[in-house]
Amino acid sequence: MGSDDGAETLAGVGEFEVIDRLVAGRDQPSVVALGPGDDAAVVLAADGRTVVSTDMLVAERHFRLDWSTPHDVGRKAIAQNAADIEAMGARATAFVVAFGAPADTPAEDALALADGMWHEARLMGAGIVGGDLVSAPQWVISVTALGDLDGRKAVRRGGAGPGDTVAVAGQLGRSAAGYELWRTGIENFEELRQRHLVPAPPYGQGRVAADNGATAMTDVSDGLLADLGHVAQASGVGIDVSTHALGTDRDAVADAAAAVGIDAWEWVLGGGEDHALVATFCGAPPDGWREIGRVLDGPAHVLVDGAAWRGNPGWQSFD
Amino acid sequence: MGSDDGAETLAGVGEFEVIDRLVAGRDQPSVVALGPGDDAAVVLAADGRTVVSTDMLVAERHFRLDWSTPHDVGRKAIAQNAADIEAMGARATAFVVAFGAPADTPAEDALALADGMWHEARLMGAGIVGGDLVSAPQWVISVTALGDLDGRKAVRRGGAGPGDTVAVAGQLGRSAAGYELWRTGIENFEELRQRHLVPAPPYGQGRVAADNGATAMTDVSDGLLADLGHVAQASGVGIDVSTHALGTDRDAVADAAAAVGIDAWEWVLGGGEDHALVATFCGAPPDGWREIGRVLDGPAHVLVDGAAWRGNPGWQSFD
Repeated sequence: MGSDDGAETLAGVGEFEVIDRLVAGRDQPSVVALGPGDDAAVVLAADGRTVVSTDMLVAERHFRLDWSTPHDVGRKAIAQNAADIEAMGARATAFVVAFGAPADTPAEDALALADGMWHEARLMGAGIVGGDLVSAPQWVISVTALGDLDGRKAVRRGGAGPGDTVAVAGQLGRSAAGYELWRTGIENFEELRQRHLVPAPPYGQGRVAADNGATAMTDVSDGLLADLGHVAQASGVGIDVSTHALGTDRDAVADAAAAVGIDAWEWVLGGGEDHALVATFCGAPPDGWREIGRVLDGPAHVLVDGAAWRGNPGWQSFD
Repeated sequence: MGSDDGAETLAGVGEFEVIDRLVAGRDQPSVVALGPGDDAAVVLAADGRTVVSTDMLVAERHFRLDWSTPHDVGRKAIAQNAADIEAMGARATAFVVAFGAPADTPAEDALALADGMWHEARLMGAGIVGGDLVSAPQWVISVTALGDLDGRKAVRRGGAGPGDTVAVAGQLGRSAAGYELWRTGIENFEELRQRHLVPAPPYGQGRVAADNGATAMTDVSDGLLADLGHVAQASGVGIDVSTHALGTDRDAVADAAAAVGIDAWEWVLGGGEDHALVATFCGAPPDGWREIGRVLDGPAHVLVDGAAWRGNPGWQSFD
């Protein structure tokens, strides 16, 4: 994304002026007691507890600038961090962002990245309250999300008990489908392709789950079975997922799977980065959630229709 | 820092196992309601306000692994973020860390980095509560610090008024001296060389300043004059720094300056990354602080002994 056409670059505009442009004209939510421009920001959480999570995205590893626009990258970076906050039963309130990029990066690309971040943050009523802008050999984006539990108990991964129902809010398999469509150069299925670039976490459903007694919860970042594996391990229980209950997800990616020549279940059960939420409940899940399985007595493993799954187990960072 | 000798690498050990090793056996402070291992951590701030700041460090740009040990890099990453929290008059309580590194990075280097971070965090009673570990072409470290104001008013940059005294806590010029000693290959002055690798912010003095009515404060990351320039701009005042009051800093680096062949004042007035604190007070500064100048009526500029300074104005990210 270097500039060969005389466009303004980060080096040409200069760090402080770029930051001024990134920050100008943004309205902060009321929980932001002090926004950007000082040594640090101040964010409110009235119950005295702040939920915090961080993720780093590296160009060519977590996104490709020949697939994604800078605006898409900004949305994805915020969305995946917000999903971690949702998965605790909290509300994302504020983000800080560190952005590394080559000196010849067009300044307008940095602004588009920030616009994408603000676009996504506004979907949940949050603000971007601070950041850092540095020189790096390739784009690297690190986002930290802060959240407010509003008095709720944090929902952890380790509270699932035998007999609980397992339920999902949000979509599964779309991001993995989109990735394969991009990778293989198949240009149909625009919605799936876009969903790989910008996930659609079910904002607000983490709080719904917490308010309705969720016993455990996580977000689907590595793949449904992999992430349920984390819940199974932390809770010391088995989990049995029913493919019957996941038919709508399979149907949504079935045509794309046929075009790519892959089993659609690989995407629905193994595909990461959708940032759906998966939780366990004593009894039926609340509105907005689909029951997809059941918690069993240990050992800690995840079954599909009562048997071991032989497909891709999910994402690892150093593959 | 790739491994040619059969040492365990990040790829060989695997993301989740590396994280288990990084997290194992660390004692969290009491403000950490929930530490690593779930989707997010939970950190307490009883007064309902959380101070937050973030910085990114990129190999070859912000540190060199042929100068610094991984332990040094970890200490520096925590120290510079903690200084931003101190500069608001707060106490750093918790950090989250994102670490990108090549797959062939020795796992023991990642552990040494984490050990360095914990070493520095313990100096202020804080914990490292979460993180992300990803593959990247070079080392890149992003740290977000959370802090607790314990009921204090946040000290901003914009509150300095004419007649206030200007004071410093901590050391000036050492990091810049150390950098030039490393760069020129002069192997004496071990303490200065080490101070470039690991700064020594005056932990606790930010709270002392706030409790003693500091009207404005910042940390010296870009250079004393550059950072006082931010205070001058934000406050709409002039600032006059007295070199007489900075003699101890000049003396501490004078021999090294002579060896390098540079004016020691370049380091004391222009050198960044010492992460000293500089603040303004109505009247005399508290114990632990040295008076170094005076706030004047505007315009917003910084003078040295009543005149403009002709040396290096400080750090810019895309030079």
